[in-house]
Amino acid sequence: MTNDRHSSRRQKLIQAIRKGGIAGLLVSNSKNVSYLTGFTGEDSYLLIGPTNVQIFSDSRFETQLQMECPGVPAMIRNSKTTMIEFLAQELIKHKLPNLGIEATSMTVDVRDNLADKLGSVTLVAKTGLVEELRQIKDAGEIEELRLAVDQAERGFSIMKSMLMPTMTERQAAHDLEHGMRRFGALKAAFEPIIAVGDHGALPHYRAGLRRFEESTFVLCDWGAVSPQGYHSDLTRVWSTGKVPPKLLRIYGVVLNAQQAAIAAIRPGVKCQDVDRVARAVIEEAGYAKYFGHGLGHGIGLDIHEGPRLSPISSEVLKPGMVVTVEPGIYLPGIGGVRIEDDVVVTRDGYEVITSVSRELGG
Amino acid sequence: MTNDRHSSRRQKLIQAIRKGGIAGLLVSNSKNVSYLTGFTGEDSYLLIGPTNVQIFSDSRFETQLQMECPGVPAMIRNSKTTMIEFLAQELIKHKLPNLGIEATSMTVDVRDNLADKLGSVTLVAKTGLVEELRQIKDAGEIEELRLAVDQAERGFSIMKSMLMPTMTERQAAHDLEHGMRRFGALKAAFEPIIAVGDHGALPHYRAGLRRFEESTFVLCDWGAVSPQGYHSDLTRVWSTGKVPPKLLRIYGVVLNAQQAAIAAIRPGVKCQDVDRVARAVIEEAGYAKYFGHGLGHGIGLDIHEGPRLSPISSEVLKPGMVVTVEPGIYLPGIGGVRIEDDVVVTRDGYEVITSVSRELGG
Repeated sequence: MTNDRHSSRRQKLIQAIRKGGIAGLLVSNSKNVSYLTGFTGEDSYLLIGPTNVQIFSDSRFETQLQMECPGVPAMIRNSKTTMIEFLAQELIKHKLPNLGIEATSMTVDVRDNLADKLGSVTLVAKTGLVEELRQIKDAGEIEELRLAVDQAERGFSIMKSMLMPTMTERQAAHDLEHGMRRFGALKAAFEPIIAVGDHGALPHYRAGLRRFEESTFVLCDWGAVSPQGYHSDLTRVWSTGKVPPKLLRIYGVVLNAQQAAIAAIRPGVKCQDVDRVARAVIEEAGYAKYFGHGLGHGIGLDIHEGPRLSPISSEVLKPGMVVTVEPGIYLPGIGGVRIEDDVVVTRDGYEVITSVSRELGG
Repeated sequence: MTNDRHSSRRQKLIQAIRKGGIAGLLVSNSKNVSYLTGFTGEDSYLLIGPTNVQIFSDSRFETQLQMECPGVPAMIRNSKTTMIEFLAQELIKHKLPNLGIEATSMTVDVRDNLADKLGSVTLVAKTGLVEELRQIKDAGEIEELRLAVDQAERGFSIMKSMLMPTMTERQAAHDLEHGMRRFGALKAAFEPIIAVGDHGALPHYRAGLRRFEESTFVLCDWGAVSPQGYHSDLTRVWSTGKVPPKLLRIYGVVLNAQQAAIAAIRPGVKCQDVDRVARAVIEEAGYAKYFGHGLGHGIGLDIHEGPRLSPISSEVLKPGMVVTVEPGIYLPGIGGVRIEDDVVVTRDGYEVITSVSRELGG
């Protein structure tokens, strides 16, 4: 990713900072720092405002900062000064009347310490300024998401090829992560969910000690993190034998709901309306109360980002947003079906960037 | 782990709460919640004080709470109430004059929202109340740490057996994590550091694309997370051919420093004095400026806990503490040596619970 790209992101943020009535923002969330500068290290803070841009770090990252974001002046603290002391002494020099902080990532302890040392500079709690920008992906980010999808799908293919009836869910989850890494993924996007039989109906299940031979139906929800830190997120269910008729039936319903919702995606459509399309299909089939979660969410540097596709979302789709579409029906004691794909909102519609088979036949 | 164990931890915390001048503590750090109750889920808060103990959660965890901590009354919010609203409405009923919060884990956003809704209840920022208790491990925790060490050592053995000259550091790191998981580890304790040649001199290096055939010297820093969430942490260096004489020399110095420091461990000794023992050996050999970090740290539910073994640590060793001892010498452009073992402070001395060979000969 070029320096120009990060610089243009910072320009957009500065507009938001002006609108937000603050003199600058202290960016502490490391993914936000990375998004705005290209720097991939940790424990560093970015000051950004109409008249300033500076990154505060320590000597471990001095060389890396020069390589990754030569356009951003770096201030390196010495090892005898804590980061908070260093930040305070440098920030005071800017004589800002106030300073925004990222309230959803900064801890109370850091804020209190910083406020104490900054004296007359008022800290203003802000939420979502950078996250709002991150919702719209540029071409380079969409390429990274395609790569994360490809790594997830290749890993999934390896895992399925290696399955044996005596293996546990957890062994398969480990093979899945290892498989994704073979194709360059940094790691799994989250601890994979691999649920045999009725485990698929448990909303917080991950992967346990049940063996594949104990049922004929499996649910797998997984994703990969690409080298630049972008997350894919997919769900598939498949059968390893005769499938209970109830599960066969809800599989058809969920697939119809998902395909209808995907077809409704285009710029200008409300996120709650996309959710509504899928929910209506499931309701009509009589399973309304078995679909208890939202339809989907944005993906990017985080596995869960904006926009949310849910009944209470007030957001509107825009070109460059990338969202999951993942309706589900969960029947306690029997099993669950969820089908999840990743979808880019294009200028005039949508593109599904996931391609692994949706065939039930394993 | 039995219910009694968690109950006795809560009793100790209540003493600290009384001393701290607060009416109760709202525990938000999920590892602290788990330590005090046995509950292994997320997104839940524990209220604890001389007259109250209650856990606040949502319907996903209702059954799990009954199974994992039957002795702690669970309050389950309904899906139309946010956790903060629910907490506020329940906490107000207790008519507490004030309430401690965990300042190093609670975000500014959560604190501000909660304060807003709690009205007259003053929130008091507290740090380290539970973390202080967690420094002293009981017998069950030490068994879990032994298991985490065993999983790490078995994974390491698999990884070394599978090494080929054309493999990259990153491929080996992935094999290492996969190997630890085969023996029941939940995951790697942190992204393993595998550093070929002079990469070993870079303090923030992880594992990249250098191949093993490009040097004759490797540094590996890794650990496993046991099923109950306990972390091991080890470092070894080994050679795959002729080793540069400078590295051979510093290997001997670091090993002497480490063995001397370990031998100094017993209850009542100051942490800074243990650090001093190792640092003196390295200084005498003329490498003082190449050992830039502290000697070690506690391990447990987190990979870095108290006590710290460092020149500025004011802590004193007590039976049940489990610490890493990891001196190092880093020669820029040549390579680094660090040797790290995990050590339990016993009633009258120490026990090293790591046993993988320290032989350089690979």
